[in-house]
Formats: sequence, C-alpha cells, structure tokens
Amino acid sequence: MTFPTALDVRTACRNGLLTTPTPGYAPGYVQANLVVLPRDWAFDFLLFCQRNCKPCPLLDVTDAGDEEPRMIAPDADLRTDLPAYRVWQNGECVAEPIDVKTYWRDDLVSFLIGCSFTFENALVQQNIPVRHIEENRNVPMYRTNIACRAAGRFHGPMVVSMRPLTSAHAIQATTICARYPLAHGAPIHFGDPAAIGIPDIDKPDFGEAVTIHPGEIPVFWACGVTPQAALMTAKPPFAITHKPGHMFLSNLRDHDLQTD
Amino acid sequence: MTFPTALDVRTACRNGLLTTPTPGYAPGYVQANLVVLPRDWAFDFLLFCQRNCKPCPLLDVTDAGDEEPRMIAPDADLRTDLPAYRVWQNGECVAEPIDVKTYWRDDLVSFLIGCSFTFENALVQQNIPVRHIEENRNVPMYRTNIACRAAGRFHGPMVVSMRPLTSAHAIQATTICARYPLAHGAPIHFGDPAAIGIPDIDKPDFGEAVTIHPGEIPVFWACGVTPQAALMTAKPPFAITHKPGHMFLSNLRDHDLQTD
Repeated sequence: MTFPTALDVRTACRNGLLTTPTPGYAPGYVQANLVVLPRDWAFDFLLFCQRNCKPCPLLDVTDAGDEEPRMIAPDADLRTDLPAYRVWQNGECVAEPIDVKTYWRDDLVSFLIGCSFTFENALVQQNIPVRHIEENRNVPMYRTNIACRAAGRFHGPMVVSMRPLTSAHAIQATTICARYPLAHGAPIHFGDPAAIGIPDIDKPDFGEAVTIHPGEIPVFWACGVTPQAALMTAKPPFAITHKPGHMFLSNLRDHDLQTD
Repeated sequence: MTFPTALDVRTACRNGLLTTPTPGYAPGYVQANLVVLPRDWAFDFLLFCQRNCKPCPLLDVTDAGDEEPRMIAPDADLRTDLPAYRVWQNGECVAEPIDVKTYWRDDLVSFLIGCSFTFENALVQQNIPVRHIEENRNVPMYRTNIACRAAGRFHGPMVVSMRPLTSAHAIQATTICARYPLAHGAPIHFGDPAAIGIPDIDKPDFGEAVTIHPGEIPVFWACGVTPQAALMTAKPPFAITHKPGHMFLSNLRDHDLQTD
C-alpha cells in the first residue's frame, strides 16, 4: 500500500488497514505526536510544552472532549485516525489498541506535537540518508539524562531520536533542521551516546535499532515521545498517546512549518 | 535618566522612579507584555495564546503565586518591576497603580508575551524611522475587526500597533521583523485602516497618535495588548496587566528571539 496524502493515511487507519509505523508515509505532510489528558491535567501539560518547546513544539490543542484537531486537520478524528495508540493508567501503559473510541471521555484535551518525520523529507530531498527509512524500520529513540523543565506535576527526562550520519551530512542536516523549529529543529547532540546518558546505542528504549556504518556518528534530536516519559513520572490516572513511531498525519505541509 | 540595561529599568521601576512608557529603553533587551490571571482561568488563557501566537507569543509563564519569571528574568519581581499596571475586575480596568504588591495572591499565574519594541531596535539600527520614538510618545494601538481564535472563555478582536513608513521602508521592515516571531513577526496589514476596522487613525484606542508624513503609509503589527481586549470580553473576576506601552524589561537580548 502507498499513501500519497495525509487523508489516505488517516482513512486507512480509520478502517483498520494501517497499524504500522509511519516514517516516510505521505511525504510532505506534517506528522504529529499525540498526548490526550483529562482537563484537570491539561494546564500542567500545556505549561510543560511551553517550557520544553524543543521536544514538545505544539501544533494544535483541542477543546475538552473534541476529537477534531481543528487547526491542523479539520474533519479528522483523533480517536481512530492513528495507526496505533497507547492507553495509560497511573503512569503505566495498559493497552495498545488501534483505536480509542471505547476509551474516549468528554473531559479529554488532545495535544498535537511536531515530529522529526517532518524534516526527514527535507533530508531525503537533499540526498542525506535516513537510515531507518532505508532499513524500513521505526526510528530508534532513547531516554537521556537531560532533564526537562518541570511544570506542575510534569517532569522527566528528554527523549531523543537518532540518525547515523557522516560529519558532512550532520552539518548539512543541522542547517536544514534548524528551519523546522516546530519539528524539533536542529539536533541537540552528536557523538558519544554516554554523554547524554544513553548506555547502549543498540538498545533503544522506543522504536528499533538501526545500522551505524563506519565513518558515521550518531546524531540526536529532541523527540515527541518525551511526554510519554513525563507521563511515567507524573502518573496521571488516565492518558492516551500514540504508540511511538505511529503518528497522526495532519493536513499541514512541511513548508508550513519552515522558517525563512 | 537613561537606562542602559534591563536591570536598570526594573530597579528604577521597583523604586518608583520610572512610571512612563518604555519604547527605546534599554535597547537590545527584550520587552514583554504582562497578563496575570487566577489559576482557574490560566488554562483557557494559555490555550488562547497557543492559538493566537501572532499577537500573543509566549516568552514565559510562571507557576501559580510565583512573582519571578524564572526563564527570562530570574530575580525580577513582577509585582514591582514594571512602570505601571492595570488592575481588572469583571473585565473593567479599576486601577492603574505603579506596583501591585497589595493586589497579589497565591493563585496568580503570570504570562509574559513578546512585544514589538524588540524589533524596533533592529529597525532603528537599519535607519528605518520609528515615529513614536522620534516624537517621544507611546506607540499608537488600535482594536481591529480581525477576530482572534477563541479558547475557552477567551475571545475578542486582535489589537495592532502602527508605525508610518514609506513603501521601501515597509518592505525592509517586513523582512527584518519576520525574523522575530516571538516579537509579533512580520506586519499583518498596511494601507487602509478601515480595511481592518479602524475608523480613525488619529484616535488610537491605546497609546498616542503619531504624525504620518506625506508619502508614508500606516503599517500594522499584531500587538500584545490583544489580551486586554480579550479580558474585556471574557470578564474574569480578577486580572492584572501592564499599562499599555509600560512594559516589563527581561534579561533576554533581542538576538535570543531572532530566527536564522
């Protein structure tokens, strides 16, 4: 199956036909992380995003109970239009369903957060290799020892995604990604994984490991799975997120997020 | 009196020695609008800012009761360090004190919002005239017929600031200001004031009128007084803001807000 547009991806998800990670899908459309929280946890989380805009750049926030992200994809349904979800209770993932219709409540506020899959399209167009796309895997993601700024009940480590690059490609990728601040922007680290608290580059905490060729260094970007690490520490009674790598496809185009 | 740094301005305010508008003060330091609301109104307002980032670009949001904007000016005191304030009850301005110590409460959340005075320094350095600085006045500000996106109980018209420029300067100013998205960015309109619902350019709703020379057109930017118009419609029982033009001086430097 190929999915030329965001609507194609969402429709396939809604019909249960697409339940896999979305890197490289509907190229040119902005992908988004999802965090859904009860209204009484929403201010703390919105503040967490405001204070940690590198891992958590906000693209849209719904009114309580509204399943439609009206700014970035009117007519979409956040309960059905992602390939896979995680349902959280007291900071633990208790289910990974392919829709969350039975879990939905009138007091839920949904947060859509920018995703690095957006700038990957720009990298590919510049002939910069994106290894997990080449190897048809989910991107590798890691918890770090970099603390986010706390906000109310939310705190926790920054999660990063990793792409192996030569130093020349790393420099090119840095200037390209800096133009997408709403898709995590420039990298936050390259080189030694241990310097940011990653013990084993071959064992990501989320997603899948990828090959690092001789002459390549790991390059790390702030990642929209960071809120899931914050959910584990804050332990709200209830939450929904996307399953890492299984993103929401918005109607925004990559160039909508690009600065001059 | 001259005020080379933000700290000089804040200290003079704290000692009651500075109670005037701040355009051109402490050049190179980022100025900010202030909105202070009770905790139970804070989510709606944070969402209003997220949905209306052109008039309301957030620089910092405090924890409830905290008088210190820890991200942009640690050690500052928001209760004393602005030249003048407005105190609001049920959507009406009921006082314009020079400090708000006696009004302060433990449940107040403070929002610091970017200000066009930041990019004015860049304009002046490019020899683009800023009329209200030349004429030693407060900037003229107007309510428009452009509706903000509603968020919870907050809705209302966008407020704009105006600077008269030749068309050549307007083009230059547009490219310069676009690099400061956290200081309202590029203009939102130029030319006919009536096209955005301004009946009389010589009668601003906030601040002071300035001279428009022959060959100049009015150029309009989204303005951080927009939340004050939203307060008038939402009518929260209690709020504090800066007095228009009487800004908070942060420790951020202009280049901190500049994109590449």
